[in-house]
Amino acid sequence: MEYPSKLIEEAVNQIAKLPGIGKKTALRLVLHLIKAKDENTYALTDALNKLRANIKFCKVCHTICDAEMCSICSSHRRDRSIVCIVEDVKDVMAIENTAQFNGVYHVLGGVISPVNGVGPADLKIESLVNRLTNGQAEIKEVILALSPTMEGDTTAFYINKRIREIAVKVSVIARGVPVGGDLEYADEITLGRSITGRTLFN
Amino acid sequence: MEYPSKLIEEAVNQIAKLPGIGKKTALRLVLHLIKAKDENTYALTDALNKLRANIKFCKVCHTICDAEMCSICSSHRRDRSIVCIVEDVKDVMAIENTAQFNGVYHVLGGVISPVNGVGPADLKIESLVNRLTNGQAEIKEVILALSPTMEGDTTAFYINKRIREIAVKVSVIARGVPVGGDLEYADEITLGRSITGRTLFN
Ligand SMILES: [Zn+2]
Ligand SMILES: [Zn+2]
Repeated sequence: MEYPSKLIEEAVNQIAKLPGIGKKTALRLVLHLIKAKDENTYALTDALNKLRANIKFCKVCHTICDAEMCSICSSHRRDRSIVCIVEDVKDVMAIENTAQFNGVYHVLGGVISPVNGVGPADLKIESLVNRLTNGQAEIKEVILALSPTMEGDTTAFYINKRIREIAVKVSVIARGVPVGGDLEYADEITLGRSITGRTLFN
Repeated sequence: MEYPSKLIEEAVNQIAKLPGIGKKTALRLVLHLIKAKDENTYALTDALNKLRANIKFCKVCHTICDAEMCSICSSHRRDRSIVCIVEDVKDVMAIENTAQFNGVYHVLGGVISPVNGVGPADLKIESLVNRLTNGQAEIKEVILALSPTMEGDTTAFYINKRIREIAVKVSVIARGVPVGGDLEYADEITLGRSITGRTLFN
């Protein structure tokens, strides 16, 4: 594609580096910014620059936050005896959204993925082991809340092996047919899991 | 949605102001930037700031460019006797990509759209009238290359009325079944147009 302007070309190339955004979409966004008020662009770039310069990670659970410790780890209303292990902050937000969990988190920062060159050392697993070792008296349960993918399973398997001698109880989130989903559309593995993992009707 | 950080919330809100990007996508992009190297974010914001601060519009055809006059208007290889009228720079790029047009352009900067509050005065129509009036000896044909939508048609109708006493010849791009498209999927209006607008088989 020939661009009528080097400035546009550079902006399109930078935007198109973002995941899931192609050059066509990037061009549409660039033209939108050019048409809109100057302030819109500057408010956007300012927010991104400030984010990048000032973002912090909680020293306890490693979730993204604005302070040394996140609002969950520093809350007196959270149950520190249950630690939920997740891949990233999106999962923390999703679980918080359910309002079904009142414990604390441990954010790994990814999952083990040989294809993407991510090994256990790239994740906050040592930190988890230390956290469990030092908090042994307090922590009663660890919940593995990783995606039901091969990478998530590998990571769960690895973590379970590393912590089973420290943690009192290691549990894993239930797998089964999604609520509201039509049974006939569930894949056979999910459906199989929902049968082997069945619970008493009450 | 509760965000774990005000910095993330502000960045997500700014990104989600862009057309076609929701908060979920914005959050994914923000988390990607946080995971990636600092330089990625700064290269992106730098490109956008430079674009916004330095972008120019060609003083002849009003397309976006980096100089006072665009490379098409200032080229000696382009035929100045044919002026193609388009909505925006994306259309210039699309037509240039076909390599089927060697004339020059006039970029309106939009189409007449009462719903969106865009009237003739918001577009470069007076500028077109002046251009045609001043270049009467040189300009032999005006091509209306607007989208085949109600707004495009309204704009073409309005422009034709304004310029028909100045321009020697006003033409409109052909409408018909898209090349490579299956006939049975063409809508009936397009198909009808392709029949009334048929040309000799050669
Ligand atoms: Zn924390
Ligand atoms: Zn020009």
